[in-house]
Amino acid sequence: MNTFGKNFRVTTFGESHGVALGAVIDGCLPKIELNEKDIQAELDRRKPGQSEITTPRKEADEVQILSGVFEGRTTGMPITAVVFNTDQKPQDYNKIKDLFRPGHADETYQNKYGLRDYRGGGRSSGRETVGRVIAGSIAKKVLKTIKNDLNVKAYTKQIGDILVNEIDLEVIEKNPFRAPNLEVVEIWDKLVKQAQKEKDSLGGMVEIVIQNMIPNLGSPVFAKLEADFAKALMSIGAVKGFEIGSGFDSILMKGSQMNQKKEGIYGGISNGEDMLMRIAVKPTPSIAQRQKTKNGEELEIIGRHDPLIMPRLVPVAESMVNLVILDHYLENKMLYN
Amino acid sequence: MNTFGKNFRVTTFGESHGVALGAVIDGCLPKIELNEKDIQAELDRRKPGQSEITTPRKEADEVQILSGVFEGRTTGMPITAVVFNTDQKPQDYNKIKDLFRPGHADETYQNKYGLRDYRGGGRSSGRETVGRVIAGSIAKKVLKTIKNDLNVKAYTKQIGDILVNEIDLEVIEKNPFRAPNLEVVEIWDKLVKQAQKEKDSLGGMVEIVIQNMIPNLGSPVFAKLEADFAKALMSIGAVKGFEIGSGFDSILMKGSQMNQKKEGIYGGISNGEDMLMRIAVKPTPSIAQRQKTKNGEELEIIGRHDPLIMPRLVPVAESMVNLVILDHYLENKMLYN
Amino acid sequence: MNTFGKNFRVTTFGESHGVALGAVIDGCLPKIELNEKDIQAELDRRKPGQSEITTPRKEADEVQILSGVFEGRTTGMPITAVVFNTDQKPQDYNKIKDLFRPGHADETYQNKYGLRDYRGGGRSSGRETVGRVIAGSIAKKVLKTIKNDLNVKAYTKQIGDILVNEIDLEVIEKNPFRAPNLEVVEIWDKLVKQAQKEKDSLGGMVEIVIQNMIPNLGSPVFAKLEADFAKALMSIGAVKGFEIGSGFDSILMKGSQMNQKKEGIYGGISNGEDMLMRIAVKPTPSIAQRQKTKNGEELEIIGRHDPLIMPRLVPVAESMVNLVILDHYLENKMLYN
Amino acid sequence: MNTFGKNFRVTTFGESHGVALGAVIDGCLPKIELNEKDIQAELDRRKPGQSEITTPRKEADEVQILSGVFEGRTTGMPITAVVFNTDQKPQDYNKIKDLFRPGHADETYQNKYGLRDYRGGGRSSGRETVGRVIAGSIAKKVLKTIKNDLNVKAYTKQIGDILVNEIDLEVIEKNPFRAPNLEVVEIWDKLVKQAQKEKDSLGGMVEIVIQNMIPNLGSPVFAKLEADFAKALMSIGAVKGFEIGSGFDSILMKGSQMNQKKEGIYGGISNGEDMLMRIAVKPTPSIAQRQKTKNGEELEIIGRHDPLIMPRLVPVAESMVNLVILDHYLENKMLYN
Repeated sequence: MNTFGKNFRVTTFGESHGVALGAVIDGCLPKIELNEKDIQAELDRRKPGQSEITTPRKEADEVQILSGVFEGRTTGMPITAVVFNTDQKPQDYNKIKDLFRPGHADETYQNKYGLRDYRGGGRSSGRETVGRVIAGSIAKKVLKTIKNDLNVKAYTKQIGDILVNEIDLEVIEKNPFRAPNLEVVEIWDKLVKQAQKEKDSLGGMVEIVIQNMIPNLGSPVFAKLEADFAKALMSIGAVKGFEIGSGFDSILMKGSQMNQKKEGIYGGISNGEDMLMRIAVKPTPSIAQRQKTKNGEELEIIGRHDPLIMPRLVPVAESMVNLVILDHYLENKMLYN
Repeated sequence: MNTFGKNFRVTTFGESHGVALGAVIDGCLPKIELNEKDIQAELDRRKPGQSEITTPRKEADEVQILSGVFEGRTTGMPITAVVFNTDQKPQDYNKIKDLFRPGHADETYQNKYGLRDYRGGGRSSGRETVGRVIAGSIAKKVLKTIKNDLNVKAYTKQIGDILVNEIDLEVIEKNPFRAPNLEVVEIWDKLVKQAQKEKDSLGGMVEIVIQNMIPNLGSPVFAKLEADFAKALMSIGAVKGFEIGSGFDSILMKGSQMNQKKEGIYGGISNGEDMLMRIAVKPTPSIAQRQKTKNGEELEIIGRHDPLIMPRLVPVAESMVNLVILDHYLENKMLYN
Repeated sequence: MNTFGKNFRVTTFGESHGVALGAVIDGCLPKIELNEKDIQAELDRRKPGQSEITTPRKEADEVQILSGVFEGRTTGMPITAVVFNTDQKPQDYNKIKDLFRPGHADETYQNKYGLRDYRGGGRSSGRETVGRVIAGSIAKKVLKTIKNDLNVKAYTKQIGDILVNEIDLEVIEKNPFRAPNLEVVEIWDKLVKQAQKEKDSLGGMVEIVIQNMIPNLGSPVFAKLEADFAKALMSIGAVKGFEIGSGFDSILMKGSQMNQKKEGIYGGISNGEDMLMRIAVKPTPSIAQRQKTKNGEELEIIGRHDPLIMPRLVPVAESMVNLVILDHYLENKMLYN
Repeated sequence: MNTFGKNFRVTTFGESHGVALGAVIDGCLPKIELNEKDIQAELDRRKPGQSEITTPRKEADEVQILSGVFEGRTTGMPITAVVFNTDQKPQDYNKIKDLFRPGHADETYQNKYGLRDYRGGGRSSGRETVGRVIAGSIAKKVLKTIKNDLNVKAYTKQIGDILVNEIDLEVIEKNPFRAPNLEVVEIWDKLVKQAQKEKDSLGGMVEIVIQNMIPNLGSPVFAKLEADFAKALMSIGAVKGFEIGSGFDSILMKGSQMNQKKEGIYGGISNGEDMLMRIAVKPTPSIAQRQKTKNGEELEIIGRHDPLIMPRLVPVAESMVNLVILDHYLENKMLYN
């Protein structure tokens, strides 16, 4: 349940306010150059406190490799990398330990397991994605050695009702929203300031583009490439929808039109053309507004929370996509190369 | 790659124009009453030739159980059920055996495997779903013994730009579109007639409702229930998008609104409330129009094809959802009951 | 539970007296020449009635391929092959349907599943190995294309207390015991005649040699090659012990001696040298003697049974070894080639 | 490849001389009391330096739980526990970094992966079993809550040609050999002293008894309980053979005798009777004698090595058996309870 992938297998572990979070990767090719900086660079993109539109929590999130790397190269043995927790303030959660926060997993969690780590949501916290980004950064490194120009890029495509149409991948890392267009930044900034004033949060859309895709990945039935992308991205907390290529727009097309579209994937198998996916991200449920729980109790969530999650979700989405590509690449290499 | 599920494991096999199609199910509870009629009833809902809006191909699709059932009850051993192919006309495909049909898997398939069964798309044919419906019908039967009032219903929600809003589950099986509202039937019928006249095909949306859901299914990280629903449904050919609950609409909401929605699922775990999912279905690529292949050749697809696929996709979608529910039920029973 | 292998995945199905037995193989390389004769040749080696030292039951055991092969070659899609049952005499079992035969799985089966197919042991029958031999024969065919001189041979090494020491692989198929030495045949024949006279059965040892082994298969921890061989061979009914290379003799050695042995495998990984394995086979529990059940009832098993099982177990053991080799070959190809 | 189990899934990681070794366990029941002392007690049984018949290396092997436990109880989330390496002396290995030690995995490892961590064998070191014992100790704790009187005990049954016949489980932990009989201790001690004087090492046999076994575990085909025990125990380094119940002795029996034996397992399924297994352990390949490598180089292994490995292998064998029992218990609970 905490393992992802069939060939490049990732098992993540760790709770929001536990001792450490991390991942074990089994099935990594040997002799790939890898060090902690490679992983840290991606972790820094997801960590909180990067700007005033993300939570002001400061988490160093320094990664340490425990196994699987020798003299700067992978050995083919399981790679374990961890981040020890440092800036937790579990006392923030004492007041709400008996309450079920609206929109959160608190109640389902308690009902299913009969107990829960109430400090920051435990394993259902967004902090769980630390392990995903660790694994994704390693997958990215491996993929570079396989197809150097493969490029997986995610960005915030929409916040509330403001959508970006002209995409410039070069500017994504140059603004706090990870917007692919600098013109929208000021408008989005106003939206966010307004939401923060209202002690509220915002939803949005993240788009992922894959350039110079490896062809022949995926297979015709259950392991269609798009099915595995869907599972990978829908497994990220807060994601409520997924589409690929023409997606929901294909409802309105006729066969004669659709047949002319370049979808990048046919019968579940990539053909090497660029691919495009979009995911719907719900507004973060932790808001500073006074709310009522399902049981009618009044609740104010004090913590330090994100008014919107898309910019920090971007590296997580990229990680999941890289994991799927590498896993399918290995499958294909095994059987059909 | 042809196996679905971790606990209730389904392996499907068979090609569009091969000897037989079917499924092997491993992990079925023993002592469940099961006979061929249970399976046949669902297969009849997906088979071609049910009305003039589906392909006029006549396939008997009679199911035969080969193993795993003794004296009318499951034994806990693998259940194998097959449908022998009878009405194939492989000669229909001789003309196009060297052409790659637009919008089909022909080219990716040939590139990946180095050969392909060109007769009707082989394994990438929609006919592959026979195995899914066999397995889904068994899952449905097992689920009845677990929660008698659990109800998984799919229906055609939209064809082209005509959407149904008022839903009446009782009328679904009473019209050829599997529309949940009889008023739309005449309008849709015109749309389809027009498309047929233009030798074209139509896309649409299928919605799936789960009533009286089993609570506590799913888990907080990769095995989120919605992630497995997404994988299950996106693995059906022609599906281009998936959403659950508020789905893509949640982009436009604020946290304070979203927190009040009943989504049926939190942190990847069902809470027993009803659930709603929607999938985008592209128009069928096999159209009678003269088309150009990617390589510039002219092509006319003679066969007997569906102008739209949603009505026949309905039982397939239900099957996939039932498989996911049962698989998660078993996981939950094992660890947390 | 009925699937074997991670990459070349075999799912077997079918009961002793059900409609059919068979296997689905997922993960087979495409473009391998394969037809029913390839499979039939191996099935004929395991079928009953080959000589008077095996059961006189006549089972045609004719195999039929249902999927995965097109124009004489594998397609990369799941291969399904079945044998329909023809010579069952279920009435033989009516008398004992409420008794638990000593040494059989009847009681554990009934207790675990709450019901059982009492006709010939259902799925716990030796007849279940039909599916294994189908899969093994396909694995053997695939391995021929990978390393043409790879040779997996099993033979009866010991019956009762009479052991063969000089091994000639050429004579194995030339005598009903599958002895690797013709001199022992007469002696063994007397042993068997005597046992038949006493309405009793005999145990023995099967040895498996692998010549021209593929190097670099296996991995250092749980997937040691010998661990997977052990699982494969111990999963055959009636097998009570397994050893590899020096096996139990290594107990008596010192490190300085042991280090000079050629074991063919180090740290779980093959080095290309020949390998040798041995398995202990218990006497068949179905004997014509009047016996007492655990509950004190008197029982006479009428059926048509084998006085010893080793000759028919030989192709099953070879099949399991071929499956393990191919599965590990694919793993190795994926990651380290 | 580094994951064991289907339901209670253990992934181990770490190299002999890397930063840390450990395990992640996914699929653990929630609400089980667990703390570091429970694990430490078992680790202390396998650690080096317990007596003069084991290596004098001093490794603290202090375990730390990183995730999955909250307020002294398991949460149902992945449990990660690690041991940081402290007493490594990698310089011991500098001299032999380019040599392949006889009887070791050095050569196969280098050939397979194209590089290796030469410090103490990296992942093929016996030190890898730290992760197994961590996981096994947790499985043991969980099993106590399921069947309190279940008792899995391993002991040294034989060293060289001296075998123990009368078994007293109470004395096992009271002597450095983990012998089940104190009378043999003095004799074995002489054997070992002699071997040490000759700079040599000794092989032996470990026997495992399961008392008050859970019935109905295992299934009739590939997942026979004995097959999974065989895989589990054969995956421990240095193990060359496995037998269960009558084992290799059943070769000499007749059916009428064999049918009267209490084997504890029929058709792959436990019946609740006690079970007995034996494994053959080869002499440790690291000896202080001057040896020749396969390539003809002279080699003296300086390190600090065990003259025999059975006493330290005992807790590892128990761990593997406990893992198999728990995994099968969960499978059985899921489907048949």
